[in-house]
Amino acid sequence: MDELLSVSVGGAFTSGNHPVKVEDIDSLSQKIEETDVFLRKKGRDDAEGFGWINLPYQNLTEIIETGRWLSKFDTIVQIGIGGSALGNRMLVNALLPPFYNELETPLRKGPRFYLLENSDPVTATAMLDRLDLSKTVFVVVSKSGSTTETIAHFLWTWQRAKENLGTKAPEHFLVITDSRRGSLRKFVRARGCRSLEIPESVGGRYSVLSSVGLATAAALGIDIERLLHGAREIDQRLVMRNYLWENPAWVLAGLNVLHARVGRNMSVMMPYGDCLSAFAEWFAQLWGESLGKNGLGTTPVRALGAIDQHSQLQLYMEGPDDKFITIIDVKNRPYFKLPDNIDDDALKDFEFLFGKTMGELLSVEARSTTSALIKAGKPVVYLSIPEVSERYIGALIFFYEYLTALVGLLMDVNPFDQPGVEQGKRYIYSLMGRQGFEEYIGEVEQYFGKCRNIEIIL
Amino acid sequence: MDELLSVSVGGAFTSGNHPVKVEDIDSLSQKIEETDVFLRKKGRDDAEGFGWINLPYQNLTEIIETGRWLSKFDTIVQIGIGGSALGNRMLVNALLPPFYNELETPLRKGPRFYLLENSDPVTATAMLDRLDLSKTVFVVVSKSGSTTETIAHFLWTWQRAKENLGTKAPEHFLVITDSRRGSLRKFVRARGCRSLEIPESVGGRYSVLSSVGLATAAALGIDIERLLHGAREIDQRLVMRNYLWENPAWVLAGLNVLHARVGRNMSVMMPYGDCLSAFAEWFAQLWGESLGKNGLGTTPVRALGAIDQHSQLQLYMEGPDDKFITIIDVKNRPYFKLPDNIDDDALKDFEFLFGKTMGELLSVEARSTTSALIKAGKPVVYLSIPEVSERYIGALIFFYEYLTALVGLLMDVNPFDQPGVEQGKRYIYSLMGRQGFEEYIGEVEQYFGKCRNIEIIL
Repeated sequence: MDELLSVSVGGAFTSGNHPVKVEDIDSLSQKIEETDVFLRKKGRDDAEGFGWINLPYQNLTEIIETGRWLSKFDTIVQIGIGGSALGNRMLVNALLPPFYNELETPLRKGPRFYLLENSDPVTATAMLDRLDLSKTVFVVVSKSGSTTETIAHFLWTWQRAKENLGTKAPEHFLVITDSRRGSLRKFVRARGCRSLEIPESVGGRYSVLSSVGLATAAALGIDIERLLHGAREIDQRLVMRNYLWENPAWVLAGLNVLHARVGRNMSVMMPYGDCLSAFAEWFAQLWGESLGKNGLGTTPVRALGAIDQHSQLQLYMEGPDDKFITIIDVKNRPYFKLPDNIDDDALKDFEFLFGKTMGELLSVEARSTTSALIKAGKPVVYLSIPEVSERYIGALIFFYEYLTALVGLLMDVNPFDQPGVEQGKRYIYSLMGRQGFEEYIGEVEQYFGKCRNIEIIL
Repeated sequence: MDELLSVSVGGAFTSGNHPVKVEDIDSLSQKIEETDVFLRKKGRDDAEGFGWINLPYQNLTEIIETGRWLSKFDTIVQIGIGGSALGNRMLVNALLPPFYNELETPLRKGPRFYLLENSDPVTATAMLDRLDLSKTVFVVVSKSGSTTETIAHFLWTWQRAKENLGTKAPEHFLVITDSRRGSLRKFVRARGCRSLEIPESVGGRYSVLSSVGLATAAALGIDIERLLHGAREIDQRLVMRNYLWENPAWVLAGLNVLHARVGRNMSVMMPYGDCLSAFAEWFAQLWGESLGKNGLGTTPVRALGAIDQHSQLQLYMEGPDDKFITIIDVKNRPYFKLPDNIDDDALKDFEFLFGKTMGELLSVEARSTTSALIKAGKPVVYLSIPEVSERYIGALIFFYEYLTALVGLLMDVNPFDQPGVEQGKRYIYSLMGRQGFEEYIGEVEQYFGKCRNIEIIL
């Protein structure tokens, strides 16, 4: 069986003030095993929140057909935020060429792709300038159908489409939302535009392998069948590994719990390679929103190798011992060779780079950083995937979803809810004048007033 | 005197387990004042590391003239990493329109602008495909003249230029480096290409207001005189504020030290607006690399409003009380109005958005998040700038440099060195076969071997 990913954890054990030892993990073994059984059981029941575990086995016919339809437009604008955007950005970043939107065909094989995510007037204005509505399709993604930023963007794009395309406007919208509930579903029914469903048991941050992530990915030429294939493969291998030290998800779950327990409250993810930078962003939502509750959870810290060697590494090396670090490397990188020789005295200090490849340098940097951190006594995991392609990215996505859910359940938090964001939403509604939220105006003014109490103007 | 920035700190004081009280800051008052005197004195002496404090007063003639020359090319590729790239990215993100490189003239007023930063073969290959060398200028930035990633990119671009442009190759290179030392300076002398100096007393992460950040900014149409003007204004106002509670840099420095002392080991920066996302990245280097040493320093956590309300806010609200959070808002945002009415029953839930502006929504979100966090007992500072333009960005840059240096000196660390990155560099050199570093091969193999000791393959 060829390798899907490899996890080296020998550098993740520490002595000193915040020790985490091999036997500490062993002592968690039974609890981890029971938690895994529970997770699998809930998955088979398709219980609320657990549905992502079944996504690798879904039927893709409708999504592929929708992707084919989307791909006929010149430009796809996906309107969504958080889990309705981060997974898409991650897939595009990993699996499409850099500068994708700038490329002319045939270097660019699918439509241009934009995300309208933030409620930002500058971005909206710039987007408006770029739209040729007759050749654009809007993909509106919100499971609840009521995400404020998404609805705001939907309102203006829908109005523009009506003004410019008249009765053809609905033909330029795809709505991805709950199968029955919410205003966007109502809108779909009333206007008869295309739609896809987000399975009820799948939450936003676990939705990249559902219609949310896959419809536009398919339209852009990403092989979504291979993506799911990779996820299925890793799922099946995980099922078979029921001895702790053979199961990397179990070992990593244990390590995360133990490092959190001894006070390492940050989980750094530092992939090496530009194409994985959005993977760290996607992970940050998955991890932060799943685990950050009941006063628990470690903070995901997004980094990028080798760039952050020149930004964050100083802190990781010599700052407080409060981080559990994962370095992600790629075994086979595209071949890009540096010059064999440069006949120039001024450059002879750099002879050691002559004839080497850029990919070699990048992986040497990943291994060197790992080693330097271990020498400094910091706990580090070195994870590598064979290459960046659909199969391995699908596997990596599923692996991290699995790990995150496992850690949440081990910490006795619900990894599938996000009660803490409701307060802010109520305040936003009240300040924006939404009916039924008047009672919160006083409260938000009280707390903002407290903040303003000491205001220093320069 | 009109406002440059406003800092509201009433929500930054906490009771409970990790209290920080108004009187705690008062008790630091004398130390802060003395530290400020020391910082100013070192600045006047142009002592090593302190030179950034004089950059707002530099003569810009040579940089502006160089910028004019750069602007005649179709494409500028800046080759640099860390402090030789982050400031440039921040300025472009803040002060140029979104999708800048995709715009056709006249919407795009200057050359296209790319950063070759990471030692990534995928990015390098894609860049190579995009280059029309006859219309491209490379700006190579490294103070030491020996940054591995930068030199690697320099080697292949230089070779390509020689192959394609022959003796005209040097006319397509601008080198920004130390005035006397290093291989790049040697190269400049030998080949006679254009160059600018990085002042000796200015370190990489404090260099955005030097030639490093300003040369390409000027070429792209950013008004660098107004940028420096904003920096000068804030510098002069800071000098005059010698009572603690009138000086926002002093209060914020005190707050940062105190929150770190009671265990809040993360400093979250969450600006609202896409155009400030790279500001948080720039800050992360400035903060992390300046303070993370001697086991001290807080970890900069980069966030972006409103997007991270859907990613990190759950954790900030209900996770551990281990963060000191700064929300950055903008008072005047460009006008982008949502539809006055959408005659559609399905959308009547969203009436509250009709006729509102996107900028209003974004600022309401900033204030709501601030209030929700304060209600949850988390320490928050709300900082606002009047608008995003050269003057205020210049002021904000200088303010954060000042604050960071002050916090470092208060913590008794040297905010201008980065000894912790040397170990990794030695390992990279040894693995890449650089002469003189053979002795480290055994060491890096030892630590990487420790990591590999427990390897789980899936």
